[in-house]
Amino acid sequence: MNVSIPKGTRDFTPVEAIKRKYLFSLIETVFQKYAYVPIETPTIENLSTLTGKYGEEGDKLLFKVLNNGDFLRKADQNAISEMDSHKLAPSIADRGLRYDLTVPFARFVVMHQHEIQLPFKRYQIQPVWRADRPQKGRYREFYQCDVDVVGSDSLSYEAEFVQILDEVFTALGIRVQIRLNNRKILAGIAEAAGVSDRFSDMTTAIDKLDKIGWDGVFNELEQRGIPATAQNRIREIFNDPGLDSLKDVFLDSRTGLLGIEEVEQVQKYLANQDLGNAFVFDPTLARGLSYYTGCIFEVNALDFEMGSISGGGRYDDLTGVFGLKGVSGVGISFGAERIYDILEGLGLFPENLTAGPKVLCIAMDQEAHLYGFDVVSKFRRAGLHADLYPDPVKLKKQMKYANQSGAEYVVIIGEKEMETGLLTFKHMESGNQEEMAPEAFISRLEQGEA
Amino acid sequence: MNVSIPKGTRDFTPVEAIKRKYLFSLIETVFQKYAYVPIETPTIENLSTLTGKYGEEGDKLLFKVLNNGDFLRKADQNAISEMDSHKLAPSIADRGLRYDLTVPFARFVVMHQHEIQLPFKRYQIQPVWRADRPQKGRYREFYQCDVDVVGSDSLSYEAEFVQILDEVFTALGIRVQIRLNNRKILAGIAEAAGVSDRFSDMTTAIDKLDKIGWDGVFNELEQRGIPATAQNRIREIFNDPGLDSLKDVFLDSRTGLLGIEEVEQVQKYLANQDLGNAFVFDPTLARGLSYYTGCIFEVNALDFEMGSISGGGRYDDLTGVFGLKGVSGVGISFGAERIYDILEGLGLFPENLTAGPKVLCIAMDQEAHLYGFDVVSKFRRAGLHADLYPDPVKLKKQMKYANQSGAEYVVIIGEKEMETGLLTFKHMESGNQEEMAPEAFISRLEQGEA
Repeated sequence: MNVSIPKGTRDFTPVEAIKRKYLFSLIETVFQKYAYVPIETPTIENLSTLTGKYGEEGDKLLFKVLNNGDFLRKADQNAISEMDSHKLAPSIADRGLRYDLTVPFARFVVMHQHEIQLPFKRYQIQPVWRADRPQKGRYREFYQCDVDVVGSDSLSYEAEFVQILDEVFTALGIRVQIRLNNRKILAGIAEAAGVSDRFSDMTTAIDKLDKIGWDGVFNELEQRGIPATAQNRIREIFNDPGLDSLKDVFLDSRTGLLGIEEVEQVQKYLANQDLGNAFVFDPTLARGLSYYTGCIFEVNALDFEMGSISGGGRYDDLTGVFGLKGVSGVGISFGAERIYDILEGLGLFPENLTAGPKVLCIAMDQEAHLYGFDVVSKFRRAGLHADLYPDPVKLKKQMKYANQSGAEYVVIIGEKEMETGLLTFKHMESGNQEEMAPEAFISRLEQGEA
Repeated sequence: MNVSIPKGTRDFTPVEAIKRKYLFSLIETVFQKYAYVPIETPTIENLSTLTGKYGEEGDKLLFKVLNNGDFLRKADQNAISEMDSHKLAPSIADRGLRYDLTVPFARFVVMHQHEIQLPFKRYQIQPVWRADRPQKGRYREFYQCDVDVVGSDSLSYEAEFVQILDEVFTALGIRVQIRLNNRKILAGIAEAAGVSDRFSDMTTAIDKLDKIGWDGVFNELEQRGIPATAQNRIREIFNDPGLDSLKDVFLDSRTGLLGIEEVEQVQKYLANQDLGNAFVFDPTLARGLSYYTGCIFEVNALDFEMGSISGGGRYDDLTGVFGLKGVSGVGISFGAERIYDILEGLGLFPENLTAGPKVLCIAMDQEAHLYGFDVVSKFRRAGLHADLYPDPVKLKKQMKYANQSGAEYVVIIGEKEMETGLLTFKHMESGNQEEMAPEAFISRLEQGEA
């Protein structure tokens, strides 16, 4: 029998699930300290909510849920006779799977606008689905960890996100560089180069800098028909891209100057904060063709070859598409799947993230098994992860299980133990053995001595 | 603009999400103490994995995911010309959404049989989807909390599940009755009444006892064509349904006697355990037409009108349908959505489950705002949930936000505070105010005195 799961999806075994819980929970703890609160949105959204929000390419990658019951009754008959799948889909699928956490968040804010108070600081850690071609590190079902605030223009939030990024990666033990830029600075550069009308061509090209280098970028600008004079001006500007030099460049660009002011204000908030990681202004950071309008962030690991592992920025009009205008938002997203791979690759998961119990008891006979049941119950009442092998079968078989269980201590219960009430705790890693009553073992652990 | 979410799905606001996290996390903590480990399976499974596992009715309730791309290319042309949705579906939808956690678990065990060791004790807390008609308390997307062990016949696990049920509901503060029966006892009763061949008719009728009473049950037995003599025998048996009386009834039923032995063995394991809730043998417990073959459990709340809020049992052949024979399993499931409603209804959620921060700072002017940024950073470094209103706007507006934020303490920062370094902490509930340095506030909280 051929049993499988769909391409691009994954099972998580206990060891993996425990590591993922560690990662999500660490990130969540930081979000909570910064006074962000959780929301959850449904896996299934109306396709009218999702469609048109992610570009044409995104629409193609949406997973659509077939209508229940006699779905052909309302099917587009023309599409059927033309055998046009693309045209037929909307008439037989009203709903789709969540594609990201930003659009559902915007929808949530609009639907619950009278229940929430602005600024609204929320985090959301949930899976999303994309019908992308699966490849190494790219899945069709994967988690996003998003933290956003809507309803305020304050740059203190941008500063807060730098702190959150810094704190999460410090806690994980991953050394990173946090880069900050502002889309208004990029707009100012386009203005200074006389290609304001080609802003997205320019940012798209610059966005590829990490991958293709400056030669590649200028090659791309050329291909996109950016005039040579403009290319030269852009080259000049990026030759000396400090904030002070940019101020000179932006003498005639209010937008550019505003971008610099915003970056400087973020730096001001952070002036007294000791960040654990490098935090730099990087005018080459572009964040692709996104909807960002203000500050943008991106994070790269220093000790591991991997694209950006976190990023975000400010978008002036998050909820406008759902009819609520003028609500500014800023947020970041942690690339949980990539971060997981780095933690694994660099051996940074804590050693105590084990699937094994603290104590595993095994029994010599049926009477000892009943006795053992009471013993593990005692351990569990004390909050210890404890287990009892389910049957008093041959010791060899039980010890084989014990060895593979990852148990920290193993206790064998027989006649002697039942008589004296004293158990021998074998520490599996060191092989050390020590005899004591269950209560003594518990109180020793409680005092953090075992 | 009409913004909505699909029927039967829900958004969870911060207060709800925090309460749900409390519930799941409490249940999870108990599972972990009993040495169960987490797994996660994908939301999307192959329909071949799901179809045929939940009966004809269940198949209809499966959410199907439309194939990506030009799905009509492989569509069943006959089904299209006949306009037969039911027939067409399998040719345009290869995948569906998880319907429960048991079938994916069985699939997981088969696929990972060489990575896991038996007995394998797993828990799984994930949402499932059913295209049921939504109604009060019934959703199309809802969570299940399952805990199962496979690969052992030991009745110590049945005893363990009674403990887990008892411990979870005690910790939640919900008084319950835990009922235990055994399908073999029901089989013995059918045998004694001479209707072994009508076993499922009998159990289906008895399963409705809570809802329709004994008169209704016998009415249903009559309608299902169970002979009057058999009905009388069944009535007789249930007139005196203690374990000892049943032993006499089962003199000629090995199956019935085995069922009694199993129940008694579970009771034996639990003999020295002080359970916090009523734990009773109830031969009328049937658990419908399920695949259970041994012990079965069900839990009802004593102080709240609600159907069963937890249940489970042993199934002899969990993985057989995926080609791995002879693997026995036993498990229980917590009805998280119903339990949530009871906690809400009885006011049992802890009071400190608030979406508000511990301290909220508000600033009188821009300079104080920068100062405030450093102050909240201090609180956060100490692990406190702390926040700063994003702009030094009019005090009235900030205080309105503070009042609605659910903050426990509010601090106003102005010139005086910046000069002295002392802040006035206003306890919002009592109105009490106290002046101290941030460090003093932190150390007081650390000593659990604030």
